[in-house]
Amino acid sequence: MQDKWLFTPGPLTTSITVKESMLHDYGSRDHQFVETVRFIRAELLRIASVSAPLWQCVLMQGSGTFGVESVISSAIPPKGKLLLLVNGAYGERMAAMAKVYGIDHEILSFNEDVSPDPASVEKMLSSGSFTHLAMVHSETTSGIFNELEPFGLLCKEYGISFIVDAMSSFGGVPIDIEKCNIDFIISSSNKCIEGVPGFSFILCRNNALKSCEGQARTLSLDLYAQWKGLEGNGQFRFTPPTHALLAFRRALEELEAEGGIEARYTRYRENNHILLQGMKALGFEAYLPAERQGCIINTFRFPAHPNFHFHTFYDELNRRNCVIYPGKLTREDCFRIGNIGRLYPEHMRVLLQAIAEVKHQMGF
Amino acid sequence: MQDKWLFTPGPLTTSITVKESMLHDYGSRDHQFVETVRFIRAELLRIASVSAPLWQCVLMQGSGTFGVESVISSAIPPKGKLLLLVNGAYGERMAAMAKVYGIDHEILSFNEDVSPDPASVEKMLSSGSFTHLAMVHSETTSGIFNELEPFGLLCKEYGISFIVDAMSSFGGVPIDIEKCNIDFIISSSNKCIEGVPGFSFILCRNNALKSCEGQARTLSLDLYAQWKGLEGNGQFRFTPPTHALLAFRRALEELEAEGGIEARYTRYRENNHILLQGMKALGFEAYLPAERQGCIINTFRFPAHPNFHFHTFYDELNRRNCVIYPGKLTREDCFRIGNIGRLYPEHMRVLLQAIAEVKHQMGF
Repeated sequence: MQDKWLFTPGPLTTSITVKESMLHDYGSRDHQFVETVRFIRAELLRIASVSAPLWQCVLMQGSGTFGVESVISSAIPPKGKLLLLVNGAYGERMAAMAKVYGIDHEILSFNEDVSPDPASVEKMLSSGSFTHLAMVHSETTSGIFNELEPFGLLCKEYGISFIVDAMSSFGGVPIDIEKCNIDFIISSSNKCIEGVPGFSFILCRNNALKSCEGQARTLSLDLYAQWKGLEGNGQFRFTPPTHALLAFRRALEELEAEGGIEARYTRYRENNHILLQGMKALGFEAYLPAERQGCIINTFRFPAHPNFHFHTFYDELNRRNCVIYPGKLTREDCFRIGNIGRLYPEHMRVLLQAIAEVKHQMGF
Repeated sequence: MQDKWLFTPGPLTTSITVKESMLHDYGSRDHQFVETVRFIRAELLRIASVSAPLWQCVLMQGSGTFGVESVISSAIPPKGKLLLLVNGAYGERMAAMAKVYGIDHEILSFNEDVSPDPASVEKMLSSGSFTHLAMVHSETTSGIFNELEPFGLLCKEYGISFIVDAMSSFGGVPIDIEKCNIDFIISSSNKCIEGVPGFSFILCRNNALKSCEGQARTLSLDLYAQWKGLEGNGQFRFTPPTHALLAFRRALEELEAEGGIEARYTRYRENNHILLQGMKALGFEAYLPAERQGCIINTFRFPAHPNFHFHTFYDELNRRNCVIYPGKLTREDCFRIGNIGRLYPEHMRVLLQAIAEVKHQMGF
């Protein structure tokens, strides 16, 4: 039986070959597995166009949030101060982390359909004593892409460290890490690399990583200690999700076979274009203006028609093997559709056909 | 090609059917997956012979250590005090957690071949103002089984909360949770249930769990918030390792098909018996006296012969498809061999044959 297609921000539809990589049990301290970990760490740096020893790659068990928390709880020193740029739930989540650790921080909030504004950020930086700036690249809440470069330049100017949550974009959208002056960039195994969930990864500028030594606020999420373990004997400090790592190695090979990040970016943009055109033709209203819309995930407003009920809409699409995603906006009723994973234009057309059928059936 | 047999404490050799369960992509917020999570949480309580609402089951992403850290960082209130019974690396690890969080604690240490002694513990409890006691059931460092009941009774007598790390024993060794007066018991997906790594689980006495509300020291490892998310809509707060959970559901079904925990315990003891007899016949010396030896993993001293080199020994066994495990004792050179996973007496005999060959070849 065909699995349902996941039009979600992850876990995603992955290739059968990626999943088949998990049909093996590797010892977590055995040579074969250590070599897998080594390959993954090197390949992540390579596709990001950075390299050791100036850059280091840390793998962290858990979901993407665990990776972000690893950075937030390890990178900001006791007397540091964090500026958070927030225009969605994932920015808010970093604020929740700063709060639970008692990290001195300020939040600069923007509407969910608006990107952070460099002028406001500069004003904050010039008046405060910030040591770190953190923001989200592709805010999955709305699907908006936030520009990174202007903020990276401000970080450089003010001599502060730049943390980027690129969870849903890394590997599917080109990011010039050096040009954007990034110090820590975080993503996870089940996003644009098209692996399965189980761990996150963090690319760290070497000196920024080294400055984390001894200042972590947890044991498991200690970014520096995790790196030191991986460097020391090539092994995780604590049991790694071996099968998810085997799948990820294969996913990295398939990314390369597709033509790398640029080729994947082209496919995701094409998926996104087909989706947006099709949804418009069906009378759905996109939440974001076209110029701010990223190619990872799209938010659509609930149709203002008494016959539209989201649960029925969702279930009927589900019956047709299409899994969409609920909304997450603070103030508007919406749903989301993802463009990523092992999905091609033909899948977007299958989804649009299913939506047309359900719309007709529900009569809205 | 046959995968290597993993004679390790986990990740383990799992059944092919458990691994094949991972050939599907489920949406983490979709009905099918929510039902999988519900089944797993209910089944874990059932096999532990406890039930809701008096008991609750929390699943936590990451390795088993993440689960232990979730409890240590959530359960002990700001003015609480933790007594740690330590006779190996996993007890030490809980002490490292208490230290990093600044939790008031004391450590009662025992040699790695000796179990904690109730009289010393009672002395500590009667003189201190402890609120929590934590210990390891099956200390994977040596393979020793620590009795739980005497300490549970002391906890009851002194009105303190009892935390048990049963990482490597839960599901493969009967534990009478009520009789042992346990409040939190922790294990993980890749141990005696014979799933793949990716998450841990914690069975919590309801009132003990409720007392954790609002006192977590992290966001991701917040035990109460994780439970609240799972109870609220049946979903994880943050992306779960969907494939590892599908594998675990199957692993639970296979545990039941084998005859439950008692049947598995019988198999592991048989594996252990064959291993110990065979190793003795080959002239290897077990580290632990027989009466303290658990059935999960065994520690053997390095043979005192100039021809014995562990790396060669390991590699030669590896070439014969047998993966053993390095030692972890503080003061003695040793190696370890695990009895758990989808391994039967015939596999233990295959390993013993391989060890006999390698011993002969190396000439020790």
